[in-house]
Amino acid sequence: MPTTDLLFPADPAQRAVARRLYALAAPQPIISPHGHVDPAILAEDRPFPDPARLLIVPDHYLTRMLLSQGVPPADLGVPTVDGSPTETDGRVIWRRFAAHWHLFRGTPSRLWLEQTFREVFGVDTPLSPATADAVYDELAARLAEPEFRPRALFERFGIEVLATTESPLDDLGQHAKLAADGWGGPGGRVITTFRPDNVADMEFDGWAGNVARLGEITGEDTGTYAGYLAALRRRREAFVAAGATSTDHGHPTARTLALGADEAARLYDKGLRGLADAADAEAFRAHMLLEFARMSLDDGLVMQLHPGAVRNHNRRLYARHGRDVGGDLPQATEYLHALTPLLDAYGNDPRLRVVLYTLDEYTFSRELAPLAGGYAALYLGAPWWFLDSPEVLRRFRESVTESAGFYNTAGFVDDTRAFCSIPVRHDVARRVDAAYLARLVTEHRLGEDEAAETVVDLAYRLPKKVFKIGESLL
Amino acid sequence: MPTTDLLFPADPAQRAVARRLYALAAPQPIISPHGHVDPAILAEDRPFPDPARLLIVPDHYLTRMLLSQGVPPADLGVPTVDGSPTETDGRVIWRRFAAHWHLFRGTPSRLWLEQTFREVFGVDTPLSPATADAVYDELAARLAEPEFRPRALFERFGIEVLATTESPLDDLGQHAKLAADGWGGPGGRVITTFRPDNVADMEFDGWAGNVARLGEITGEDTGTYAGYLAALRRRREAFVAAGATSTDHGHPTARTLALGADEAARLYDKGLRGLADAADAEAFRAHMLLEFARMSLDDGLVMQLHPGAVRNHNRRLYARHGRDVGGDLPQATEYLHALTPLLDAYGNDPRLRVVLYTLDEYTFSRELAPLAGGYAALYLGAPWWFLDSPEVLRRFRESVTESAGFYNTAGFVDDTRAFCSIPVRHDVARRVDAAYLARLVTEHRLGEDEAAETVVDLAYRLPKKVFKIGESLL
Amino acid sequence: MPTTDLLFPADPAQRAVARRLYALAAPQPIISPHGHVDPAILAEDRPFPDPARLLIVPDHYLTRMLLSQGVPPADLGVPTVDGSPTETDGRVIWRRFAAHWHLFRGTPSRLWLEQTFREVFGVDTPLSPATADAVYDELAARLAEPEFRPRALFERFGIEVLATTESPLDDLGQHAKLAADGWGGPGGRVITTFRPDNVADMEFDGWAGNVARLGEITGEDTGTYAGYLAALRRRREAFVAAGATSTDHGHPTARTLALGADEAARLYDKGLRGLADAADAEAFRAHMLLEFARMSLDDGLVMQLHPGAVRNHNRRLYARHGRDVGGDLPQATEYLHALTPLLDAYGNDPRLRVVLYTLDEYTFSRELAPLAGGYAALYLGAPWWFLDSPEVLRRFRESVTESAGFYNTAGFVDDTRAFCSIPVRHDVARRVDAAYLARLVTEHRLGEDEAAETVVDLAYRLPKKVFKIGESLL
Repeated sequence: MPTTDLLFPADPAQRAVARRLYALAAPQPIISPHGHVDPAILAEDRPFPDPARLLIVPDHYLTRMLLSQGVPPADLGVPTVDGSPTETDGRVIWRRFAAHWHLFRGTPSRLWLEQTFREVFGVDTPLSPATADAVYDELAARLAEPEFRPRALFERFGIEVLATTESPLDDLGQHAKLAADGWGGPGGRVITTFRPDNVADMEFDGWAGNVARLGEITGEDTGTYAGYLAALRRRREAFVAAGATSTDHGHPTARTLALGADEAARLYDKGLRGLADAADAEAFRAHMLLEFARMSLDDGLVMQLHPGAVRNHNRRLYARHGRDVGGDLPQATEYLHALTPLLDAYGNDPRLRVVLYTLDEYTFSRELAPLAGGYAALYLGAPWWFLDSPEVLRRFRESVTESAGFYNTAGFVDDTRAFCSIPVRHDVARRVDAAYLARLVTEHRLGEDEAAETVVDLAYRLPKKVFKIGESLL
Repeated sequence: MPTTDLLFPADPAQRAVARRLYALAAPQPIISPHGHVDPAILAEDRPFPDPARLLIVPDHYLTRMLLSQGVPPADLGVPTVDGSPTETDGRVIWRRFAAHWHLFRGTPSRLWLEQTFREVFGVDTPLSPATADAVYDELAARLAEPEFRPRALFERFGIEVLATTESPLDDLGQHAKLAADGWGGPGGRVITTFRPDNVADMEFDGWAGNVARLGEITGEDTGTYAGYLAALRRRREAFVAAGATSTDHGHPTARTLALGADEAARLYDKGLRGLADAADAEAFRAHMLLEFARMSLDDGLVMQLHPGAVRNHNRRLYARHGRDVGGDLPQATEYLHALTPLLDAYGNDPRLRVVLYTLDEYTFSRELAPLAGGYAALYLGAPWWFLDSPEVLRRFRESVTESAGFYNTAGFVDDTRAFCSIPVRHDVARRVDAAYLARLVTEHRLGEDEAAETVVDLAYRLPKKVFKIGESLL
Repeated sequence: MPTTDLLFPADPAQRAVARRLYALAAPQPIISPHGHVDPAILAEDRPFPDPARLLIVPDHYLTRMLLSQGVPPADLGVPTVDGSPTETDGRVIWRRFAAHWHLFRGTPSRLWLEQTFREVFGVDTPLSPATADAVYDELAARLAEPEFRPRALFERFGIEVLATTESPLDDLGQHAKLAADGWGGPGGRVITTFRPDNVADMEFDGWAGNVARLGEITGEDTGTYAGYLAALRRRREAFVAAGATSTDHGHPTARTLALGADEAARLYDKGLRGLADAADAEAFRAHMLLEFARMSLDDGLVMQLHPGAVRNHNRRLYARHGRDVGGDLPQATEYLHALTPLLDAYGNDPRLRVVLYTLDEYTFSRELAPLAGGYAALYLGAPWWFLDSPEVLRRFRESVTESAGFYNTAGFVDDTRAFCSIPVRHDVARRVDAAYLARLVTEHRLGEDEAAETVVDLAYRLPKKVFKIGESLL
């Protein structure tokens, strides 16, 4: 299975154009402005663990698919909340996974993993129950080589900048180390992102304690709302100093709300006293998005809004294995009315940049594209999580371009914890964009010269510009 | 118009792969695990009536389309509730239908009927106003031949197993006759399906009377909730004894609810006393889905959930012609929150199988695929009713595969009353799946060897396994 | 970039069929049954203004896209509410626009404008920042020629009938002039459309005053509900006398309601006294749709319903520049339950024709197609506004044909203020329909003979019939 034409349309004329366009995008450096790679990986640059622990255990796309066919996550080594034992033998985990490889036919996980084996590790043996051990051994051998250490891979992957994501309670120590090594800091290669959910969402586990810690870290009195805002501003300064160019907000809905300072303070106090109900928490989150927008106007951080995930929907999974193991699910998301307060306040201000994501593609042409095509502050983020897939990347272009154009979109984000999958994820997006542009060209809707410029914009220039990558906000 | 390439993509490379894949699927036996064929047709094996009465009068896809252009259903022979006269001359009905044949261009009805003429009856004359009589005569001649009796067609169609649908009040007499003839019973060729809507839905016409009859049939006291549950269990046993492997639940919404036994009993009593309002009825239906899930864990019956139809939306049509004549319409359907109580209780239990259907394709990638790809109990049923069409079958694969894979889907169901259309309906689904897999192959996303295995799984092995076809649950 | 194959699929077999089908549709006269061209343009037949004032300033698709990238509408000459100055130099506006031409890649605006330059004005120079002046000069030169006066273009465009849109308060003076010139009146070339939003929607700016004027114009006492209805009937008569064959209703939702006359009168009075709240206004609008349906049964006017736009969502834009400058946005729209009262009353009456439009494509297969395929009174209007684009026109056919067929759709409407873009807009729809039908043909789903008939029906015969174009309702 040659990969040169991977994801290109079958029609020879269209494929030829797609190849030419892709050839322009492929060598562009990777801008990864949003993701969840642990910065310690690059700060410490230690060898990766065994193939199962690297590629299977932490990947909830994989463990949830096996769960859907009755394989318990513990059998794949997913750690338990209570510390009860799970499978620890990497080879056993790997074999179990390989035995279910057919489940992934037609999924992006299949594509990512297969391409990672081949392109990153040079392993061409197709995975199957019969070849499980061979593939494992080949991968393990590579992982022991110095060329497969994180920093070496970072170079080989052609990553220009990688943003990680940290909470305001993080001491940013790994980023300090990276900066000391010449890898981090403002304008650097590895930067952070300010993600305040654990102190802005009263329903977050341990919110009150988190807010107290925020006070300790900053020396501000987070017992008052004013002190809380001051503390958040302090941490944003620290994040900017560590190279951050954006914030990230993962909310259940896209709701925004313009509360007066008194009303916001009242809600905040209610939360601290443990008296806030679900509606209070939603109102406070919604209000804080406006506060964060105001702060962004001051410090220049780009805002990212990720709404629509119902966290820990699979309760038994959550009880046994905790957060972020595949039990979150999308819900219908309304943007138009939800964002009105924010847009009324700052929607026409081009100094503000709000990048909107969705798990609900049935908003693409109805809400997201008309919004992004009509407000100076709005950009559309790439299809995310369940929607980060070839078919949806294609439908995204087919559904948003006609109202928003290409230049109100923000470029691809990999959003991944899986460092080794970064190049293939960006490659998939570049291929799909090349294929889409090739269709416009062969249908005489766009000249190939303009498509050529656009494909490079989408791969490189646009995310760099929208996310202020390479800029220092100090 | 040759039919070998029917529904295959135009691109020659893709078409060539589609042909090869389809050639593997086409000869597979038909598994029809969900439908509405009258079992008397096969139990009695009498000749079919005239072409109009066989193919037009009972097909609400056809009569509703003509209604939408102002042709009253009575002019097509659809019986009236009050017995007022309708057209009785089959030839007149046929001519009227043929005069409107152009209305069906681009519809699945057109495809099904045309293929049924050609493949089932060997009639190649294209239907048109001018050829109406000729086609009628050719069809009528065939219907008089013994090779066109139901059992002979069943054999010719290559049907391995056909499931019909009966209510708990049905005496299953036709299935007893089928079993006596060696055609029915557990593991047999014609089996039943347990559909309890008329006793589980308080808003169903005559619910209280139905529940009373349920008591009579089973000898349980359905005057109490406990007796009602016992009676349902009894009937499930009888259905299992008649070969059933699944139940079917047609609800307005997907809502589920975990009531305590006392609360459920209280609602049930309220219903019996005629005091239940719409919210009570909805709560009781929602609760009963959990009860039925519990029963399924005991007796092994696969649960099918068909939510989202607003019954008898066309009131004038309902008043004149009653139920099931084309006046039902889809409404927006929410799954994620609606199913939470059921999933909290049994979602991770692989012994339970719940097959979800939808009339709302705008849930495919947002809710249905992530749910099926994350819960062991869930499978996705084929696109249903208004969505049983080439375009939606394609969009279904394009929208659900990336999150749920192929193996959390349950295979094609024809859901039809129209016995003679069964082979073409399955054929359409096999062709669309072959075309989709061919695209994956030509875009280098799947090897042809794996696509070949998958296309046969989708056509035959998967529905057989998911619906426990060929198994006895006794 | 040759335009013969514009928008045709790349596959050679499919493209060949598309060409043949398009060749049949292309020469058909244009029926434009719904739009917003100012009738004065044709009544007065004066030369058009400069290129910027003709093509940029009044086109909210264009100015909103530049606004989304931070260019204020005032810089493009969009007039302000308070009369504060805006850019007046057409050439400066044109250059600014050309500097942002890349924003429109992949949008219908790009397609429309480019085709208008080439096909209408014979200007082949591709627009770019470098060629801005040259293109401007070429266009300006053409606009000075007599062949580019409105009536000459009307002839050249092959427009058979063009409907404009007026409010009941309009004196229809321009239409009287057109009739006097042999261009208007019943069955004429330029006809009007009755759009009563400004007197039926209590939330419309100045509603009470509008209603009072309606009384003055008609001599009816609009201080009473009965007089209000009588006045509306009078104006409908006047519109019919001016050639109208349809009405248009732009409502926030599709809600309909059957109020008794007393209740309606009570709401009306409440509105007149300034006491109506948002729910009252919604109920009154919903009720009036039923009243208008009743009137249509009497006078034969086709009803058009355009629901789903949130007007003036961009408040700052509205405050500075007023209505209809790109600040309206789509919201999710429910049809099934909303239309029930109307359908209960008149849905099965083929004498009534209601053409439904949407800004929410995620209702195509779920609600719109099953409704139109099941009620005699309903037709589906073409994709509208944000959805009037090649991709959505294609998805419309792919999503509605299977349940509604082609013949429950109403044909293309351009809905435009931009007279010069009319031919290209119709051309785009004809090309997309030809491409869709070509796919059906190459996939053996429809014979080319039937596709040939259908493509002409869609382009010409169907809109003419559904909208009663060429008929006099006197």
